[in-house]
Amino acid sequence: MKELNIGMVGYKFMGKAHSNAYQRLAMFFDGNAHCNLTAICGRDEEWVKSAAKKYGWAGYETSWEKLITRQDIDVIDITAPSDAHYTIGIAAAENGKHIFCEKPLALSLKNAREMYEAVLKNKVKHQIGFNYRFIPAMQLAKQMISSGKLGTIRHVRAHYLQDYIIDPEFPLIWRLQKDVCGSGSLGDLGAHLIDMSRFLVGEFKTIMGIQKTFVTERPVVEMMTGITATAKEGAKKGKVEVDDGTVFVAEFENGALGTFEATRFAHGHKNDWSIEINGDKGSLKFVFERMNELWYFNADDESGLQGFRHIQTNEGVHPYMQAWWPAGHVIGYEHTFVHEMYEFTEAIVNDTATSPDFYDGVKCSQVIEAVELSSQRRAAVDVDSL
Amino acid sequence: MKELNIGMVGYKFMGKAHSNAYQRLAMFFDGNAHCNLTAICGRDEEWVKSAAKKYGWAGYETSWEKLITRQDIDVIDITAPSDAHYTIGIAAAENGKHIFCEKPLALSLKNAREMYEAVLKNKVKHQIGFNYRFIPAMQLAKQMISSGKLGTIRHVRAHYLQDYIIDPEFPLIWRLQKDVCGSGSLGDLGAHLIDMSRFLVGEFKTIMGIQKTFVTERPVVEMMTGITATAKEGAKKGKVEVDDGTVFVAEFENGALGTFEATRFAHGHKNDWSIEINGDKGSLKFVFERMNELWYFNADDESGLQGFRHIQTNEGVHPYMQAWWPAGHVIGYEHTFVHEMYEFTEAIVNDTATSPDFYDGVKCSQVIEAVELSSQRRAAVDVDSL
Amino acid sequence: MKELNIGMVGYKFMGKAHSNAYQRLAMFFDGNAHCNLTAICGRDEEWVKSAAKKYGWAGYETSWEKLITRQDIDVIDITAPSDAHYTIGIAAAENGKHIFCEKPLALSLKNAREMYEAVLKNKVKHQIGFNYRFIPAMQLAKQMISSGKLGTIRHVRAHYLQDYIIDPEFPLIWRLQKDVCGSGSLGDLGAHLIDMSRFLVGEFKTIMGIQKTFVTERPVVEMMTGITATAKEGAKKGKVEVDDGTVFVAEFENGALGTFEATRFAHGHKNDWSIEINGDKGSLKFVFERMNELWYFNADDESGLQGFRHIQTNEGVHPYMQAWWPAGHVIGYEHTFVHEMYEFTEAIVNDTATSPDFYDGVKCSQVIEAVELSSQRRAAVDVDSL
Amino acid sequence: MKELNIGMVGYKFMGKAHSNAYQRLAMFFDGNAHCNLTAICGRDEEWVKSAAKKYGWAGYETSWEKLITRQDIDVIDITAPSDAHYTIGIAAAENGKHIFCEKPLALSLKNAREMYEAVLKNKVKHQIGFNYRFIPAMQLAKQMISSGKLGTIRHVRAHYLQDYIIDPEFPLIWRLQKDVCGSGSLGDLGAHLIDMSRFLVGEFKTIMGIQKTFVTERPVVEMMTGITATAKEGAKKGKVEVDDGTVFVAEFENGALGTFEATRFAHGHKNDWSIEINGDKGSLKFVFERMNELWYFNADDESGLQGFRHIQTNEGVHPYMQAWWPAGHVIGYEHTFVHEMYEFTEAIVNDTATSPDFYDGVKCSQVIEAVELSSQRRAAVDVDSL
Repeated sequence: MKELNIGMVGYKFMGKAHSNAYQRLAMFFDGNAHCNLTAICGRDEEWVKSAAKKYGWAGYETSWEKLITRQDIDVIDITAPSDAHYTIGIAAAENGKHIFCEKPLALSLKNAREMYEAVLKNKVKHQIGFNYRFIPAMQLAKQMISSGKLGTIRHVRAHYLQDYIIDPEFPLIWRLQKDVCGSGSLGDLGAHLIDMSRFLVGEFKTIMGIQKTFVTERPVVEMMTGITATAKEGAKKGKVEVDDGTVFVAEFENGALGTFEATRFAHGHKNDWSIEINGDKGSLKFVFERMNELWYFNADDESGLQGFRHIQTNEGVHPYMQAWWPAGHVIGYEHTFVHEMYEFTEAIVNDTATSPDFYDGVKCSQVIEAVELSSQRRAAVDVDSL
Repeated sequence: MKELNIGMVGYKFMGKAHSNAYQRLAMFFDGNAHCNLTAICGRDEEWVKSAAKKYGWAGYETSWEKLITRQDIDVIDITAPSDAHYTIGIAAAENGKHIFCEKPLALSLKNAREMYEAVLKNKVKHQIGFNYRFIPAMQLAKQMISSGKLGTIRHVRAHYLQDYIIDPEFPLIWRLQKDVCGSGSLGDLGAHLIDMSRFLVGEFKTIMGIQKTFVTERPVVEMMTGITATAKEGAKKGKVEVDDGTVFVAEFENGALGTFEATRFAHGHKNDWSIEINGDKGSLKFVFERMNELWYFNADDESGLQGFRHIQTNEGVHPYMQAWWPAGHVIGYEHTFVHEMYEFTEAIVNDTATSPDFYDGVKCSQVIEAVELSSQRRAAVDVDSL
Repeated sequence: MKELNIGMVGYKFMGKAHSNAYQRLAMFFDGNAHCNLTAICGRDEEWVKSAAKKYGWAGYETSWEKLITRQDIDVIDITAPSDAHYTIGIAAAENGKHIFCEKPLALSLKNAREMYEAVLKNKVKHQIGFNYRFIPAMQLAKQMISSGKLGTIRHVRAHYLQDYIIDPEFPLIWRLQKDVCGSGSLGDLGAHLIDMSRFLVGEFKTIMGIQKTFVTERPVVEMMTGITATAKEGAKKGKVEVDDGTVFVAEFENGALGTFEATRFAHGHKNDWSIEINGDKGSLKFVFERMNELWYFNADDESGLQGFRHIQTNEGVHPYMQAWWPAGHVIGYEHTFVHEMYEFTEAIVNDTATSPDFYDGVKCSQVIEAVELSSQRRAAVDVDSL
Repeated sequence: MKELNIGMVGYKFMGKAHSNAYQRLAMFFDGNAHCNLTAICGRDEEWVKSAAKKYGWAGYETSWEKLITRQDIDVIDITAPSDAHYTIGIAAAENGKHIFCEKPLALSLKNAREMYEAVLKNKVKHQIGFNYRFIPAMQLAKQMISSGKLGTIRHVRAHYLQDYIIDPEFPLIWRLQKDVCGSGSLGDLGAHLIDMSRFLVGEFKTIMGIQKTFVTERPVVEMMTGITATAKEGAKKGKVEVDDGTVFVAEFENGALGTFEATRFAHGHKNDWSIEINGDKGSLKFVFERMNELWYFNADDESGLQGFRHIQTNEGVHPYMQAWWPAGHVIGYEHTFVHEMYEFTEAIVNDTATSPDFYDGVKCSQVIEAVELSSQRRAAVDVDSL
């Protein structure tokens, strides 16, 4: 057992999810790492102090610059708003800290590449927060595809649908401000689809896409507190500079075709992302809101009895499930973070490879930029040209 | 009650479906038209004679040129292979026959336009075989959208998935021969998605798409009998010149975004087409293999109790269902043709407008050509530019 | 090809379904029987004449006594109200006619047995209208169970749910009058579950059940026209003497346990019957409103990849589907009657066994009576004791 | 904020679930109780010491008699095997401890009643572990039914299906030993259905049921470690004295009818319990393996647009969901325990009523005994007669 002292920047949605994850490890997993929640960091002392207590952190800092230089900290976990990832990430790497960075790696492909270079140069472990890879069904899908159960992949179709900003009076929160988040539905939601497709299918080759902002101005908010922010009555309006919805098609390097969609304008879908993959030997389907299920079509099944199988991925034989409850007892969203942190912290103490790492962050940014360029140019963009 | 004498060209899959439809009308519908199955036409006398008997036609012809000049024929129904539609259609119009033409209208946009001009010039009724419009759930969807229940449309996503040609040894049937069918998955399957989107959402504005042939050569068959054709062992191979799969994104004239996919390479999907439409007041979802169901999300439902409603569209209040069975007794694929022929024949005898008509056939061809050009040019194509 | 002249008594819901079925045979099946719709019979001349024309019958009769003595009639098809089955059935048998009788065979077990004796004695073919056996998915289920794919059966659970009489103002139609229909939800709906369980699992041994009438009086109607009957405003009320809902558990002769429910008081369920069967090697599930689907769990599937398979039973390899459309094109409720009539008429002309026959009708009545007695006695009833 | 010192007896499946629950409270809920995991108790010192460390307990005991007399302990949480509940529960009450007891309260109705008398007499808070009541969807269902959205309840149908003991070589674990667990599938699984029906519908009046042991002898195990126990090769066989499957029908005091089934012999069902309730204004459906969903049919919805609504119960407006993640992010099985412990501990520190309490445990035992007697007597049993 090796101690790992964690320092975390940020304490909102992701800060809570990560805190919970580190705390669950001891009870449910038998790894070599023992994680200490050493210090949490935020600019507002009152808030961060309160968060430290509530989330179980031993101490707190109000300066990330200080946090990353503390000798007792082994790992910097970055859950701050997207525009802060780059600066903190580079600095943490230069201070020799292992880094867990929430997605997106950075606001631009250029900055993402610099971050990747920094962690390589400083020889620190690095992982990026594509937590959905750690859903048992997605790990199972990866194993199945890797072992050839789907054969040659022909098609991928994935969408990530939400509906919380349809009302034009919904305010201009940080997720809608280009300077803070870099991208709208594409970077926030589409990024997960891109990463999952890379994980399961392979690298993107060519992109053709269309981006759109349906509601072009919204009430300005002064204080943002996540997605529940509300503007004052009669607040003045500001311009929305990110995409409300993005659709794109792609060809993959292995020849597969893909259709993708990310939007916050699909009524009835709260956090509904799904992916289907068709190969010449079978198919897989997954829907996040039913994250304990994987659908599998095996073209080798007996004729007349073929059909998509509904696999309830809660048996001990399924990835990570031995750690949790008996067969058929479902897990939830937050468990993906526990699995993620288990892999990250074990990779550090066992000195093995992390995955997904900053390279995956760079590749995701590259696809995002290709989609944006394709929409601007009204033409296909080859990912490798960026 | 007015008599209508039908003459039909073709006697395979669609010929059977249309024959059955005309025969069902009297028992289930109380219209003003009384349809007589006067003559069916095919080149092979033995086959067409046998089809005439089996399908209940009073007579037969082996020359369509003769059929369309028969004075006792009021309507020409064209279910022959796609490459014959143009010539027969023009000739039938010039002979003053009302025309029902299976999709596609023609192999090219140019030819489709000529056919449309011919029917206008000759003042005959004309309808095209987009039978899926006549699914009760789709008629209900149309009514709901027209009455504003979905509000402003933001997104459409539709796919049409089949899996019958995945095996590289599946032969080069007529549906894979460009000179006979004009297009592959796009024209055969995608055409339905395009028409349904036009029906429910509106006109396409801009297209960006990718087409692909996964299996580039296949065994040649001598005799084609639909999708069950088999090649001889050791048959020589011919080149596949149509698309195996097509994916595209689109912007509509009303600003909505769409994602589309048509493929015969999606294992586990036999004839699985679906469409979902999201507006700023609600959403609709439909899956053909569950054609008796429509899913509806109403954003005005009580907070906390919102969710997609699973409407079983088999009640007497649903479109066309009064004609069939009591509530909850499902109908099937062939019923779409009965509804289609009911509307077509009533429009003739009542001298009202047909729908969908050859204009809809032209517009569908226009979108298909835009997709093809976009894929070739690797760039966006504006539909109106064609 | 052998001619079969049909005479049918009754022309409402079932009369229409049977008429349609006989007419579909020629186009879709290649059997040895050629069915002529010779005469339809009903008491009201105006109505039956109109029905004859609409449903395609060559002639009509207003006296069933006359119909069954006509020398040109080979088959009597009884779709009249339930209380008429017994008398017509016995008489038809004594006149040497082959008989198709809609369910229930009779209003009592005793009468059902007499009908069975009559057909045996007169050596005529006899079939009973358990049309749901002829759903392709149910035929497939039967084949699977017979070939051992489910192993030893342990459990059956089945329910038949409707919701059309929940409103206390819904009138006292014939289906709610004990002297006409004999039984309420049990005889109308439960009978199908009982027959399907006998078909798939085996004979019932012991029953424990509860029956209930939730709405004990309803407005009287003078003229009944099926389920759409409406009473006049202020109509006087009559007593409901049949069950609104029936629930029972059972043990089968092979040791399996069953749970059953039939009701017209389940909101949201129009004609929703379902059955699930669990054996020690696998399981099957079926829901009628999705009648083109069968769910199959195979306990021999690879560990970790097990799950219920969703079989879309619309491929050419599935029972009866070769007769209809290409893979994935769904069929509907009325097709069950086409299959049923195909089997019945072929059995006559080929002199083979019919199934389900009047013996099956007797056995179903026996279980129904056991349920009724169990509810009255508040105790278990062994089926064989009746 | 008030401190509460917990002492827990047992450290296996439920011990882990409860430990996790107490620990989650601080981060996710803002209650008045602050729970300290003071001591965990088990007979084997090595095991309990290890569990204490892994699950985060400050100390441990090897004698429950000692634990319940410790002055620093406020609450005794009983997760020990079922046969120990009675003795520990009575003793804890007599020592003035608040008690949380896992289900079943006791092995007999008589003992359960004595436990209930003991907590009343000693004026301690008491709750029983029917954790499924705390699923957000079930709380929502309760609110909906209480506010009249379903109207008068007519039907309940519920089943709890598992499949882990189908293999006759599966060993005779404690859950199959009558002296340890009292009952088989009925007490283990059926108890949840009974409690949920009491919670949502009301009290049971009359029962008719059948119980069955499909596999009557199984290999004996020496050491039991939950459901993963394995017997040695060639182990001798012992008699199975509990039910493998139980089916029963019921009438409720409010007149509703119910069908129930509990079994461990339903292949393809790991932990699949479900309940549907039909009232004369609407219906609700729930399936545990999709515990983040509730299906609702509202008979007042617009005609033609009626259908079961699929409510994804993960919005902030849904019970307990404000504590967790943004809309659409699913929770899992273990969250039910967090909610349960939140309610229990808040009831203690705020001196409000607990629910479900030992009275609910007694009533559940009463129904269980009625089912058992009905099966033995082959006759209806009125619950109140026991």
